[in-house]
Amino acid sequence: MRLTSYRSGDTVSWGGVVDGGIVDLRKRLPDYPTVRALLEDDGFDDARVALYGADPDVGLDTVTLLPPVTDPGKIICIGVNYANRNAEYRDGSQEAPYPSMFVRFPGSFVGHRTPIERPPVSDQLDYEGEIALVIGTPGRRIPAERALGHVAGATLANEGTVRDWVRHAKFNVTQGKNFDRSGAIGPWLVTADEIDLAAPLRLTTTVNGEVRQDDTTDSMMFSFARLIEYITTFTTLKPGDMILTGTPTGAGARFDPPRWLVPGDVVEVTVPEIGTLTNAVIDEPK
Amino acid sequence: MRLTSYRSGDTVSWGGVVDGGIVDLRKRLPDYPTVRALLEDDGFDDARVALYGADPDVGLDTVTLLPPVTDPGKIICIGVNYANRNAEYRDGSQEAPYPSMFVRFPGSFVGHRTPIERPPVSDQLDYEGEIALVIGTPGRRIPAERALGHVAGATLANEGTVRDWVRHAKFNVTQGKNFDRSGAIGPWLVTADEIDLAAPLRLTTTVNGEVRQDDTTDSMMFSFARLIEYITTFTTLKPGDMILTGTPTGAGARFDPPRWLVPGDVVEVTVPEIGTLTNAVIDEPK
Repeated sequence: MRLTSYRSGDTVSWGGVVDGGIVDLRKRLPDYPTVRALLEDDGFDDARVALYGADPDVGLDTVTLLPPVTDPGKIICIGVNYANRNAEYRDGSQEAPYPSMFVRFPGSFVGHRTPIERPPVSDQLDYEGEIALVIGTPGRRIPAERALGHVAGATLANEGTVRDWVRHAKFNVTQGKNFDRSGAIGPWLVTADEIDLAAPLRLTTTVNGEVRQDDTTDSMMFSFARLIEYITTFTTLKPGDMILTGTPTGAGARFDPPRWLVPGDVVEVTVPEIGTLTNAVIDEPK
Repeated sequence: MRLTSYRSGDTVSWGGVVDGGIVDLRKRLPDYPTVRALLEDDGFDDARVALYGADPDVGLDTVTLLPPVTDPGKIICIGVNYANRNAEYRDGSQEAPYPSMFVRFPGSFVGHRTPIERPPVSDQLDYEGEIALVIGTPGRRIPAERALGHVAGATLANEGTVRDWVRHAKFNVTQGKNFDRSGAIGPWLVTADEIDLAAPLRLTTTVNGEVRQDDTTDSMMFSFARLIEYITTFTTLKPGDMILTGTPTGAGARFDPPRWLVPGDVVEVTVPEIGTLTNAVIDEPK
């Protein structure tokens, strides 16, 4: 299944993406008011039954897509996870034995086709294409060999970053990673039965059609399974929690001179097995 | 008012702390199922009316206190905010022009008098006494001079930290700050009408009665108001969001040799205008 959340007029709903549009599953399955509730209450089978043979209620172009899970309890983001990316920092450091991670708030993301916003305090808005895992089955101290069984599915992220604000403090990148509506998640959640998360996935990011990032998950220093194992050493992962698994080389900051996003740019993040997340860039509306 | 959340048997409720115990306000005010809902729907006046002259329903010692806001949307933690604390790092760096900040998840905190847990992967559990602000009125780009008007009240935190895990990665302290039940928030939320947040507050942290941290908010490099102004440059603060405003010098890591917490220790964080947050230390139950 491909599941997403969306706004139609004043109503927020969620549904299954099928040929021709979205089947409104909130309406059909009132026990599950959100995708998170569906995940918490193991509703995938109910969703499959409701989707079977159903005609779409709304067209994809007639609604505003939201991040597939609108209210994740945690969004854990992995830094510097693709090989050679550590070298981009040119600080002579060894590769870390553990992943670096930070947190984003849900309000820092829009959905597919909603513009991401460059804030007035910076001209250094940058893109980072990523694969995002959505947790389905809760767990603590999950061994790597069982980790993918806890994943409900995958979606894409543009982990939009305000670079100068990432370096405002000696430690931690929180502020540059959390500008309201500076990033995007979508277009939809592809459920784990339809994508092999243990096989290499090819991730590309383009800006105005020009390829900037192009790598496969084989290059990751910490695999999806290893990330889940490590994260659950310290915290309990719960349904709807998300892990943004890191971005390949080629963000705008790495060019000389840097190539920041400007209003009118269009960023596309693609993994063929998932889809394409498309977002234009605008200046934050006054 | 002093408001808190608590568990009594299998039931989670919230109420007002009065002489002799807690007045169950969830029962009396069904429109507000949680403290967060009370904050979101401007329910303080209703709470005051319900508390007036009411007898306590439960004793403080007969329930399990929870963090006053059980489901905050964000917990933003400030690093290195008391003068001289920067010098503790002995790295020759200048004081930063902006605050360092990281994020904790609600599951990393217990309430007053519930033990905090030392995980099996580390013997470096450390205390950090802090004042925690709870947001009442939402806002973005809040000027410092109006910032305290957005604060619903204050509580205390022991921002328990697993020190070696703070340094697992080159950037960011996320993992060492987010072990399940490694910190505490409480004992209750003192509403802003009963505490002058612009005046200096004296914060002390003791371990087994020995004073380890003792400073006033006059020593903060970034005042409460300035923190809110800065944070809302990038993100919208919402009702129930929390800001943990940093810890004074004197955490266990700063002793030579370091003085880590061990099972049986009792940590107390006190601000006279708020109360005392007390937590014993145990090894994480198997």
